Amino acid sequence: MIKVGIVGGTGYTGVELLRLLAQHPQVELHAITSRKEAGMPVAEMFPSLRGRVKLAFSDPAQAPLTGCDVVFFATPHGVAMAQAPELLAAGVKLIDLAADFRLKDTAEFERWYKMPHSCTDILAEAVYGLPEVNREAIRKARVIGLPGCYPTSVQLGLLPVLDPEAVRRAGGDLIDPSSVIADCKSGVSGAGRKAEVHALLAEASDNFKAYGVSGHRHWPEIRQGLSAIAGKPVQLVFTPHLVPMIRGIHSTVYARLTPAGRATDLQALYEQRFAGEPFVDVMPAGSTPDTRSVRASNMARIAVHRPPESDLLMVLVVEDNLVKGASGQAVQVMNLMFSLPEDMGLTQLPVLP
Amino acid sequence: MIKVGIVGGTGYTGVELLRLLAQHPQVELHAITSRKEAGMPVAEMFPSLRGRVKLAFSDPAQAPLTGCDVVFFATPHGVAMAQAPELLAAGVKLIDLAADFRLKDTAEFERWYKMPHSCTDILAEAVYGLPEVNREAIRKARVIGLPGCYPTSVQLGLLPVLDPEAVRRAGGDLIDPSSVIADCKSGVSGAGRKAEVHALLAEASDNFKAYGVSGHRHWPEIRQGLSAIAGKPVQLVFTPHLVPMIRGIHSTVYARLTPAGRATDLQALYEQRFAGEPFVDVMPAGSTPDTRSVRASNMARIAVHRPPESDLLMVLVVEDNLVKGASGQAVQVMNLMFSLPEDMGLTQLPVLP
Amino acid sequence: MIKVGIVGGTGYTGVELLRLLAQHPQVELHAITSRKEAGMPVAEMFPSLRGRVKLAFSDPAQAPLTGCDVVFFATPHGVAMAQAPELLAAGVKLIDLAADFRLKDTAEFERWYKMPHSCTDILAEAVYGLPEVNREAIRKARVIGLPGCYPTSVQLGLLPVLDPEAVRRAGGDLIDPSSVIADCKSGVSGAGRKAEVHALLAEASDNFKAYGVSGHRHWPEIRQGLSAIAGKPVQLVFTPHLVPMIRGIHSTVYARLTPAGRATDLQALYEQRFAGEPFVDVMPAGSTPDTRSVRASNMARIAVHRPPESDLLMVLVVEDNLVKGASGQAVQVMNLMFSLPEDMGLTQLPVLP
Amino acid sequence: MIKVGIVGGTGYTGVELLRLLAQHPQVELHAITSRKEAGMPVAEMFPSLRGRVKLAFSDPAQAPLTGCDVVFFATPHGVAMAQAPELLAAGVKLIDLAADFRLKDTAEFERWYKMPHSCTDILAEAVYGLPEVNREAIRKARVIGLPGCYPTSVQLGLLPVLDPEAVRRAGGDLIDPSSVIADCKSGVSGAGRKAEVHALLAEASDNFKAYGVSGHRHWPEIRQGLSAIAGKPVQLVFTPHLVPMIRGIHSTVYARLTPAGRATDLQALYEQRFAGEPFVDVMPAGSTPDTRSVRASNMARIAVHRPPESDLLMVLVVEDNLVKGASGQAVQVMNLMFSLPEDMGLTQLPVLP
Repeated sequence: MIKVGIVGGTGYTGVELLRLLAQHPQVELHAITSRKEAGMPVAEMFPSLRGRVKLAFSDPAQAPLTGCDVVFFATPHGVAMAQAPELLAAGVKLIDLAADFRLKDTAEFERWYKMPHSCTDILAEAVYGLPEVNREAIRKARVIGLPGCYPTSVQLGLLPVLDPEAVRRAGGDLIDPSSVIADCKSGVSGAGRKAEVHALLAEASDNFKAYGVSGHRHWPEIRQGLSAIAGKPVQLVFTPHLVPMIRGIHSTVYARLTPAGRATDLQALYEQRFAGEPFVDVMPAGSTPDTRSVRASNMARIAVHRPPESDLLMVLVVEDNLVKGASGQAVQVMNLMFSLPEDMGLTQLPVLP
Repeated sequence: MIKVGIVGGTGYTGVELLRLLAQHPQVELHAITSRKEAGMPVAEMFPSLRGRVKLAFSDPAQAPLTGCDVVFFATPHGVAMAQAPELLAAGVKLIDLAADFRLKDTAEFERWYKMPHSCTDILAEAVYGLPEVNREAIRKARVIGLPGCYPTSVQLGLLPVLDPEAVRRAGGDLIDPSSVIADCKSGVSGAGRKAEVHALLAEASDNFKAYGVSGHRHWPEIRQGLSAIAGKPVQLVFTPHLVPMIRGIHSTVYARLTPAGRATDLQALYEQRFAGEPFVDVMPAGSTPDTRSVRASNMARIAVHRPPESDLLMVLVVEDNLVKGASGQAVQVMNLMFSLPEDMGLTQLPVLP
Repeated sequence: MIKVGIVGGTGYTGVELLRLLAQHPQVELHAITSRKEAGMPVAEMFPSLRGRVKLAFSDPAQAPLTGCDVVFFATPHGVAMAQAPELLAAGVKLIDLAADFRLKDTAEFERWYKMPHSCTDILAEAVYGLPEVNREAIRKARVIGLPGCYPTSVQLGLLPVLDPEAVRRAGGDLIDPSSVIADCKSGVSGAGRKAEVHALLAEASDNFKAYGVSGHRHWPEIRQGLSAIAGKPVQLVFTPHLVPMIRGIHSTVYARLTPAGRATDLQALYEQRFAGEPFVDVMPAGSTPDTRSVRASNMARIAVHRPPESDLLMVLVVEDNLVKGASGQAVQVMNLMFSLPEDMGLTQLPVLP
Repeated sequence: MIKVGIVGGTGYTGVELLRLLAQHPQVELHAITSRKEAGMPVAEMFPSLRGRVKLAFSDPAQAPLTGCDVVFFATPHGVAMAQAPELLAAGVKLIDLAADFRLKDTAEFERWYKMPHSCTDILAEAVYGLPEVNREAIRKARVIGLPGCYPTSVQLGLLPVLDPEAVRRAGGDLIDPSSVIADCKSGVSGAGRKAEVHALLAEASDNFKAYGVSGHRHWPEIRQGLSAIAGKPVQLVFTPHLVPMIRGIHSTVYARLTPAGRATDLQALYEQRFAGEPFVDVMPAGSTPDTRSVRASNMARIAVHRPPESDLLMVLVVEDNLVKGASGQAVQVMNLMFSLPEDMGLTQLPVLP
């Protein structure tokens, strides 16, 4: 059994980790921390876990984290990097669901997160936890910077056409790397379990809007990820929108196809690229996946389109932002790090309706 | 492995059965029928099942139902009783999620369902599938009339105070059996996956109303169930309401306490009565359970209250209408009928948020 | 033109007052205060008012409130009573949408609101602002304690059967005054525009629950109001529930009919009692009103039922909690106080769908 | 008073017309038809209109339509063109909310609507009812083809940059006319009040998806409209999405700026272009309008953006699909046709929250 600790268990990615880990056959929940709720049984805050999670929140200062095999950070940014040196020294692996180990360029990190990066050496060894791109590196990693919810969906959506091997086979770029538009829509749980007026039901329900259009923190992350996949700079416009629903991300991704791209069987390319992937489902040609088709599951579904009378590629990607976009992907990564079957504890079917 | 057939797999209780059974370790899906969709792969209608359910819908006339160990009917009323004789003759067990085998009084059945009952002998042997009341009879049954969604919640809510053993211990009735009011609220999936204007999002969303107040089909069923539990007539007022949400039932049940009832420690009574039940959770005193605490799970949660300055008992019961109120309870009953652990395939945690 | 001031314009009753008053032909918005937002144009916080409300929030200390004809308090309790003496001395009329002038018994006020009442003399002259009960007193009042949202709906629902004149005509009580149950359901805007976790879309959406069952502040207010109508003590059980929608209250009110009550034509009684009321609509027999049928309007709709095989009266009442349950009723009261047509500025039709 | 007839009053654009016209000071509702509901009082189907609309539905064959001054068609396509000749002959003006008089190219009409066009002469004289583009022609028109909901939002969003006068002043095109992407999101009422499974609350709620991506009927209409504005062909990719809300459209429109476009002060250009428009509000730079800021009102709000590190123009447009996107625009057009103030009956403020 893997001894697991969770730092910051009172938010949505925290309670989703608890839901998944409590059902994982090889996991023993060893510690969960919350400064504010220390002493409170987890199941008192989240009655959905009654009878299944016996743990109480413990004070971060006293939690037995160094006795864990792996610790998940479901915290705001800045927390993981503060505790990483001690945990790594104690031989504990570390999966950060926040942003501390995502951006490789510390200047970029400091620009977007308004704080200095306190452990650049650990950042250097950290692996970006997107299994479909970095599976082998994840297996050997001690520290994971888990992708954000939007970045997971956009990178999965463009991976096949940016893949250097596909580009090589096509004899050149498939898309113009300066032409990407990611028009993304997310459920409200993506904003976290924070008391903020704009996320109240009476504000966000029966309503739709864009936000963060002049610069969202996931923008540099997506750009870094796409560029890493392509092996050269990829530029993008990223427009997040807020959907009046709890869970789910739908990314509508546009890119201009090159002549080589237009000559390619894109449906086949996508199906081949993701053929062995346990958590990426390429839908039949002509499909329009809905977010509920992945609700509460770790699956992402993708549909590839060529809009009529245009040179564009359009890719539709859906995921549950709290599962494949966060806690489910964290468990998938943990499975890889501990040589378990990659889908262990992640086979629950989506909840529909 | 138990060979399972489903008649009528295109509605919400049908797809919920598929979700649960596809994850059940002792079940093999053998046949699923739909007159309209014969030939269509199930996963084409419900992409949430892609890669996990390979079956296609087959025509009812040709489906290999007699080769099954058990057949679930997730159909409108009238279908199960038409096929029951042939299936029983072939040694197949039968679990009807509709109303054909619920009401023991055929006159009552015919009054509410506007059709004659075609197999009263089978009705006579059918067992009402509420495990918390009829567990032993269910184990031996060939035919189950599965309780409706509202009736499950109201019966669980009053079971401890109507239980003859509790009445005996208290030296008399705990509640006035003519004073019951069940003010119930249900999500819209309870109306089924039928194209009807009143259930459109643009009609039912951001809206709340009562319906069926002059007589709902679950009213005689609840009355029959409560009377059977008490061993004497129980009368009730039943007011269903429609809540703008997908899943969930919240029943607020009122009854006037007798002096014996007021002298009883009701919290203790409820905790003891449900102590061994795998799918009934009595919440701590003072709780107000929310429907999402059981979303997509087979659990019912109950809180017992004494409203201030009154003689009333008030019981709050939540369940997922599609799980404990329908398909989950059907699987629980199947487990009992086939001597499997009662919670097999039903241990998924609720999805929150 | 009536010069109007609003204290506390940043909450939902405040912005709803603005919506209604900006369209009122005899109102001039003179001042609106907010400590936190002083200096900000109102239309910057609420873009729905762009081009129609030019006012900016001003600091409460400096707002020209004594120059107004009437001031509305859309604030937490405690604010109106602090400012009432100065405003009344300056000849300003005062309509409090909070609780300072609702409960006539100061001990009751202090028990429920946890603060001493600072101006009991003003409380003594204050009129409870329910036009259907106190129309003539409202016309002459200087200070109004406006009813809460739940209390408005429950009192309207029972007014005809508690009315002493109806009781006299029937030769005795129509209902047992100790048997009232008000099972009420409210949209989330009733909780106000406050940043609280439980009201987030990701918490309150696709969810339903009771709350405040051991004692809600509207309970003593309803009891006081019903008793005042009846001219003798009326007792009740009050169970509020939270509905995943923005606006709307649905009260399902039960009471045990006396023989005199059972002998009465209740439909006719309700129709007669409300015949001249501009904002109470008694629906045809058998109706189940939905909350959207009054959305964004000042109308309340009522349906009267006799549940089968019972001695109960059941009344269904719907209102928009922000209009007839708060700001619309405030404008209706203002019209009465200034001898304007009672429906002036309140004739907008409900928004459906 | 203008005598108004409505053909097809049982859908959402029909009931929205009723809401607006019943409050219009210069309108007398003269007839409303419905084949299925002939004889039923309108207020029985829509209780929100009780006491305010006395009319009953009449059979189309017998309705006194030729006695009207203007008839609105809130019907499926094909109905208006069947009745247009008779009505025009009787001197009745005609506003079609469906598609019969939108597409000027009958081959295009027949390709998308799968029926021949029966009155091409009337089509030739029909005016496309977008006041911001065709105000003077509308004043003199006998027949109006009212724009669709999506087309209204996209055309308003690009009008300032396609306007030949603006192009002339800039010395050349501001955007590349082959680069337009309209990523549009609509509430579910846009699908109409039809009993269809995909629009059920239990299907469409807590869900998000694209649809119609291989060709939506509004695509040729938008293309025609943009080309007419520009005076030369404009090409676009149009991706509609379904949002789990009742009302509202949010169009996120992208286009590649030319050097001339990048040199232009776009905020100023938009503000100037719409300066005199009663129903288009250009938001301050940096805004992200939300759909609720126009809910139930005839206003469209627009924000102009330049995404960082790109050559794109991004325009965000919100409207209420049933008001500015349909029935409100129809009333605006009627006001123009009858020389009334353009905003008469359309000044209700948006409903927020």
